[in-house]
Amino acid sequence: MSLTLEHCRERDARDPLRPLRDLFTLPAGVIYLDGNSLGPMPKAAAPRVAQAVQQEWGEGLIRSWNSAGWFELPQRLGDKIGTIVGAKPGEVVATDSTSINLFKVLSAALSIASAGSPQRKVVVSERSNFPTDLYIAEALCKERGLTLKLVEPHEIAASLDSSVAVLMLTHVNYRTGAMHDMRAVTRRAHESGALTVWDLAHSAGAVEVDLHGAHADFAIGCGYKYLNGGPGAPAFVWVHPRHADRFWQPLAGWWSHEAPFEFTPHYRPAAGIARYLCGTQPILSMTALECGLDTVLAAQPFGGMKALREKSLALTDTFIALVEERCAGHGVSLVTPREHALRGSQVCLAYVDPHASLPPEGASAALGRPGAGREGAYAIVQALIARGVIGDFRAPEILRFGFTPLYLGFEDVWNAVEHLREVLATAEWKRDEFNRRNAVT
Amino acid sequence: MSLTLEHCRERDARDPLRPLRDLFTLPAGVIYLDGNSLGPMPKAAAPRVAQAVQQEWGEGLIRSWNSAGWFELPQRLGDKIGTIVGAKPGEVVATDSTSINLFKVLSAALSIASAGSPQRKVVVSERSNFPTDLYIAEALCKERGLTLKLVEPHEIAASLDSSVAVLMLTHVNYRTGAMHDMRAVTRRAHESGALTVWDLAHSAGAVEVDLHGAHADFAIGCGYKYLNGGPGAPAFVWVHPRHADRFWQPLAGWWSHEAPFEFTPHYRPAAGIARYLCGTQPILSMTALECGLDTVLAAQPFGGMKALREKSLALTDTFIALVEERCAGHGVSLVTPREHALRGSQVCLAYVDPHASLPPEGASAALGRPGAGREGAYAIVQALIARGVIGDFRAPEILRFGFTPLYLGFEDVWNAVEHLREVLATAEWKRDEFNRRNAVT
Repeated sequence: MSLTLEHCRERDARDPLRPLRDLFTLPAGVIYLDGNSLGPMPKAAAPRVAQAVQQEWGEGLIRSWNSAGWFELPQRLGDKIGTIVGAKPGEVVATDSTSINLFKVLSAALSIASAGSPQRKVVVSERSNFPTDLYIAEALCKERGLTLKLVEPHEIAASLDSSVAVLMLTHVNYRTGAMHDMRAVTRRAHESGALTVWDLAHSAGAVEVDLHGAHADFAIGCGYKYLNGGPGAPAFVWVHPRHADRFWQPLAGWWSHEAPFEFTPHYRPAAGIARYLCGTQPILSMTALECGLDTVLAAQPFGGMKALREKSLALTDTFIALVEERCAGHGVSLVTPREHALRGSQVCLAYVDPHASLPPEGASAALGRPGAGREGAYAIVQALIARGVIGDFRAPEILRFGFTPLYLGFEDVWNAVEHLREVLATAEWKRDEFNRRNAVT
Repeated sequence: MSLTLEHCRERDARDPLRPLRDLFTLPAGVIYLDGNSLGPMPKAAAPRVAQAVQQEWGEGLIRSWNSAGWFELPQRLGDKIGTIVGAKPGEVVATDSTSINLFKVLSAALSIASAGSPQRKVVVSERSNFPTDLYIAEALCKERGLTLKLVEPHEIAASLDSSVAVLMLTHVNYRTGAMHDMRAVTRRAHESGALTVWDLAHSAGAVEVDLHGAHADFAIGCGYKYLNGGPGAPAFVWVHPRHADRFWQPLAGWWSHEAPFEFTPHYRPAAGIARYLCGTQPILSMTALECGLDTVLAAQPFGGMKALREKSLALTDTFIALVEERCAGHGVSLVTPREHALRGSQVCLAYVDPHASLPPEGASAALGRPGAGREGAYAIVQALIARGVIGDFRAPEILRFGFTPLYLGFEDVWNAVEHLREVLATAEWKRDEFNRRNAVT
């Protein structure tokens, strides 16, 4: 039985989460499938940030550190994030960037691991993990004389031997949309004696996360993707209470001091997650982040993350079904796992031009500049953007589409697939690509 | 000859920098002497941040990374900062917090020093340096098995022996307003074989800084003090080109990669200062920072930092003269050096109650809770704030007043001293303190 536009409209009509769309400003004519890169603007953000600028900064000046609660922002926002990822109050802080927070927790995890088992000198991660995670780990391993071992997803379990100190994974892969079973993988890591560091960049606000239920050790994540916190919004960090007090993380700035206003020359780390703070935080960006968190929390009366996840799977199921039915024969194939338990909140398609012969494996090594045959994914994404369907390209051949149930409906999915079908069927991207290459710019 | 209110008004009338005051929104009835803690709001900030929120984020969405130039912000703002501190284009980036940037440059400095001279295992700093600098250094020394040696200002030269890897100083002391001779101290450090790390938190935008002229090695600084970048604005980092390519700083996130959009699993540091970036930056806060930088650059046609510095010294000279003349006998004494070359852009007074006997030295060790006799500085600052004169308290006995020539005039200085005189003479702070302590809150 084929899905129709009518089916999609009916699903939207009976969608209890539909009113949440009104929390956002979305430009007219845009179908936004890139909320996994930058979430859209909550309507509340514009007046709230204006208030922070004009009243809190402009009028309150330095007094606003206390009177406007600026000092409490990392903890207050952290608690809101905690409810989204299965952490308890007081366990999360919103601060710094994802990369910097990863450095903090990986430093802590390695120090805790080496204190107990100095022979453990390996960090295991996925070769296709988000590069910044690998870079941070690579630099830290270099500093400490450790080894970063990169494996394929199916090799993770076998790689966990007595040499491994830390297993560092991103819960949902940025490129494929594949999701790990956090609980099972954590159990396997613990059985081998390793600690786990989870990057929730593509999970927080997108899928159900239960850090305590999974017995995870450390987690970090991003504020500007599914949490809708604004461009470059501060990130977050969670440390299980069993570890939080065990280690000085090396970015020991004044906001992590036990008594920051005593201005004493010697460092005494604050208890708990506060010691994972460092310096003064960008208040205006924090203010916008809170508006983003509130959009996710607005789903609580409708079933919260469970309801969001159900709708997300329905959206991605619909997208997959429509693409396979309506775009067949045009060179796109599914990269993201079909099984719900293995899928995040995005769908990735690989594009291979059905009318070109494939180059030998390895010939398209210049990432970002797709080789012959695989050429096209970038241009197809550009053609879709020109039509108002904003997705993402990941070199060399991936079309990436994020689905955020807070503001997307089933009719959006239908329309997005129609645009994709037309772009592929008419090969307009080849004309666009031709024009682009020959444009005098 | 006594200074009069008339003299002050005359000086304002012939002050060529006077029009710059109109670049700021200052609340009615406030004399703001805390721009060295948080600079006030540039008028341009409100519409500019609103544009970044509503147009760039709200309408442009992910496209704004390119179309609104978000990717270039660290460098574009860095170049503006460079003109303020004597660095060349392409040598500075605006990013992260002061503490985190200190971690990066201190890591680099230590690695460069130890590569050449592994026997150098000491970092020298001032005991009264801003605590977060000491905490970052303490944690890093702990990690690397090095020693952090804290000395008094007059002991710095003698402390520079063949064991010292790095001399880490704040150019202008946050607590006393005393300024180092950056060129002379750097020369002395280099003669001893040590590298220098300068914190410009209380210098950038406040005093003339010439990093190249001083032959400095590394510098970091703050965006939200004299640069007026907004609460928690991103900080900045400069590395002399002779060092910039020599080291991977350990916060090796994707924005510091040679080709961040290739998404390759292995790290290759970008050339130059770009390798001192790490993760994605808080764009809204960066946008406000640019407005702040533009207020300082607006002084360029009037003589730039040289003209600002001259007015700053005139303001602090006037404040010192008026306090010594009009507040004599009320227990305040000058902490900040009288000599121009040794003074930053702030004046600190110590308060000791002239009607109380001093406790034995060391008895008031509980910083932040001033002991008998020294009690009062906190309450005096509160009484001044209640009158609209916003200064700062630094435990246990310091009244701290920052003078920013961009928006302060000589009549402001007169009025501030009048308020201080009245507060001291009427001892209204004692009543306030009494009321505060007995308030049911």
